[in-house]
Amino acid sequence: MHFLVVRTQKTAAEKIFSEKSGMDAHSGEYVWAVPDLVYMHDVLGPSSIKALREISGGKTRYKGRVIVVNDHIFPPKDIESSNNIKNMNETSESEGWETIPFGEGIEHTLLIENGIIKPGMLVVGTDSHTVTAGAAGAMGVGLGSTDIGSLLAMGKQWFKVPETILLNVYGRKGKYITGKDLILMVLKDIGVNGANYASMEFHLQKDTSFNMDDDLSIANMTVEAGAKTCIVKNSSILESNEFPESDAGSEYTEKQYDISELEPQISMPYSPGNVTDARELEGTEVNQVYIGNCSNGTISDLREAASVLKGRRVKKDVKMIIIPATRKIFKQAISEGLIDIFIDSGATVGPSTCGACAGLHMGVLAENEVCITNINRNFRGRMGHPTSKVYLANSYVSAESAVKGYIHVPGE
Amino acid sequence: MHFLVVRTQKTAAEKIFSEKSGMDAHSGEYVWAVPDLVYMHDVLGPSSIKALREISGGKTRYKGRVIVVNDHIFPPKDIESSNNIKNMNETSESEGWETIPFGEGIEHTLLIENGIIKPGMLVVGTDSHTVTAGAAGAMGVGLGSTDIGSLLAMGKQWFKVPETILLNVYGRKGKYITGKDLILMVLKDIGVNGANYASMEFHLQKDTSFNMDDDLSIANMTVEAGAKTCIVKNSSILESNEFPESDAGSEYTEKQYDISELEPQISMPYSPGNVTDARELEGTEVNQVYIGNCSNGTISDLREAASVLKGRRVKKDVKMIIIPATRKIFKQAISEGLIDIFIDSGATVGPSTCGACAGLHMGVLAENEVCITNINRNFRGRMGHPTSKVYLANSYVSAESAVKGYIHVPGE
Repeated sequence: MHFLVVRTQKTAAEKIFSEKSGMDAHSGEYVWAVPDLVYMHDVLGPSSIKALREISGGKTRYKGRVIVVNDHIFPPKDIESSNNIKNMNETSESEGWETIPFGEGIEHTLLIENGIIKPGMLVVGTDSHTVTAGAAGAMGVGLGSTDIGSLLAMGKQWFKVPETILLNVYGRKGKYITGKDLILMVLKDIGVNGANYASMEFHLQKDTSFNMDDDLSIANMTVEAGAKTCIVKNSSILESNEFPESDAGSEYTEKQYDISELEPQISMPYSPGNVTDARELEGTEVNQVYIGNCSNGTISDLREAASVLKGRRVKKDVKMIIIPATRKIFKQAISEGLIDIFIDSGATVGPSTCGACAGLHMGVLAENEVCITNINRNFRGRMGHPTSKVYLANSYVSAESAVKGYIHVPGE
Repeated sequence: MHFLVVRTQKTAAEKIFSEKSGMDAHSGEYVWAVPDLVYMHDVLGPSSIKALREISGGKTRYKGRVIVVNDHIFPPKDIESSNNIKNMNETSESEGWETIPFGEGIEHTLLIENGIIKPGMLVVGTDSHTVTAGAAGAMGVGLGSTDIGSLLAMGKQWFKVPETILLNVYGRKGKYITGKDLILMVLKDIGVNGANYASMEFHLQKDTSFNMDDDLSIANMTVEAGAKTCIVKNSSILESNEFPESDAGSEYTEKQYDISELEPQISMPYSPGNVTDARELEGTEVNQVYIGNCSNGTISDLREAASVLKGRRVKKDVKMIIIPATRKIFKQAISEGLIDIFIDSGATVGPSTCGACAGLHMGVLAENEVCITNINRNFRGRMGHPTSKVYLANSYVSAESAVKGYIHVPGE
């Protein structure tokens, strides 16, 4: 039996915003939508709660799921960060929100890993990297604390339905190439304003053989190109079939990327868009290497780093810090012997948290120090002293550089 | 063949200070001595270096071994702690001192574990818990930064040769009893000024069956009774035969402790000497449990905690933080499956560092929070907010309380 379905051709973003707003939403239009999930962390959760109180005296009309994650500065580094956690969790308790148990890991990675973020959802968070949800086929949008407070108070939030940029990626990737290199290449191509307020819809063809963890890295850094949100459809991933997709004939800009000749990429200080081939930076001395965070703290990243570090030693003066993004990844890394490899190499393995990424704790850079890392941002002073410098690379290149004490591409 | 040796009867302290001063030293006398080892950490090393520069313009006459350990705030939590590490290590490099590679662990535990601290040595450090060396048969003395600077500049340091209190410990210890309970019992008995400027010389009889890790805990907390230094001779430990010992007939005060009826002990806020039987505090609610630090971050402590946590869950609202004292202990704990047990229980496992102990990072307490921990100090505000409260206990009781969410003695 067949039904005749009459429908307009829509982008993935239009489909989701139509559903969540109850309107027939088109790119560029403003809609009021009700997200399926609001989540907040210990640095910007408290300011969102403050905004909620200022707006409505604390009264909430939002009926969806609200989740609180203590991931940015856990375990707390000082009285302020500790009070923030305590007060946010007390509010979560009294409001009937869900508080993720301590130490489970970084919110974006965790809520995908445990299946809370599902394809077709609209999820919003206090953190700009809420876009990571695109790797799970959901539209993730990072909102400011005032908007989160307002959404909780009023029950809905206005959005401009984003235009769509469809990025079709094909070609067989080379050795030591990961999703990080793809997204850095895209940033080199379109720049940090290249996708302002757009939905970046990646179609990764099967020949690229990217895995789910590559998708996380790609989705996570779309915000560095200015994207409002994203969807990463990966033909190598079965689950990806369920992800929303823009209809043929709907309104989008299309771009083509062949990765068959792609080399490892690096973003130089002080912008994720300041990208060059990694080998151009050969020999640049580094004082710290950090592997972790919501873009690249996955089991794949740990495997990549371990493949480079196995049987080798981190250079003595180099601070090498490795932080699995979640408890589950940490446990998996133990069972695969990866943590043993890290510990034997001289790396310091930290508990699942945002760690050094935002310069908040666990690896803040000193004056003039240079760091190579697989995180997502290298703004001036973000990871420590304003004179410090941060280079963004994949986990292979980061780990190799820890052994050498300078930037080096493995196998070169 | 026999030699006739004519010697005065001497205490262990008199023997060591005689050797290190080249004088015939007696308790209560002042001597100039040359320690075998000076070591410093990233919080008080920088102020010692500053003192050295003020005293001699940086010129050093000290010819012994100088070791620098980055253990207090590693990985650095902010720009200041990061600059401290960078500057201290640069000084170490230019002075030809030894810098322990990043992430090896807590200085006191590490320098005993790797055999740098040996029986009969006189070692000094910037940290008050340098007394821990007594567990390895060395006399450890914590000095202020100015005295460390002066020693480095002048090559020697004055000491008053400590009087000796000999503590003879016997009796078969019960289940869930550790060295922690012994030293807390002694603190209850003699008070926090009970051994002011003395050398506490423990003789642990074989029937007590304490292990080397118990010795570390006992030695470590002698400073909480005011002791200048200590020696812990443990008849259950072969190596202990080589430790210096006070001659029969030398000048010391002797005390006897029978531990056969000893119950788990707890120090209540705000003094390590404010000790009671743990079961007297049954039901006291706790928000955080911390297992780690230079007194009790050993493999024995981790085994004890794991024996309690295995197959159980930390109470949801409780922050449970576990930090192996050294890289070697961390690795051993992985190989024994202890880290898996901790992670499964919901604990957060941190890298080898002083961690939450001194309220410097990785578990600082919020307003009004209550913590039970196996560390060595519970002064007001030391671990966080001035209104927070810290209870000191052994690892069994700490771990059990994490599961319950309140103070509870296992098996009760």
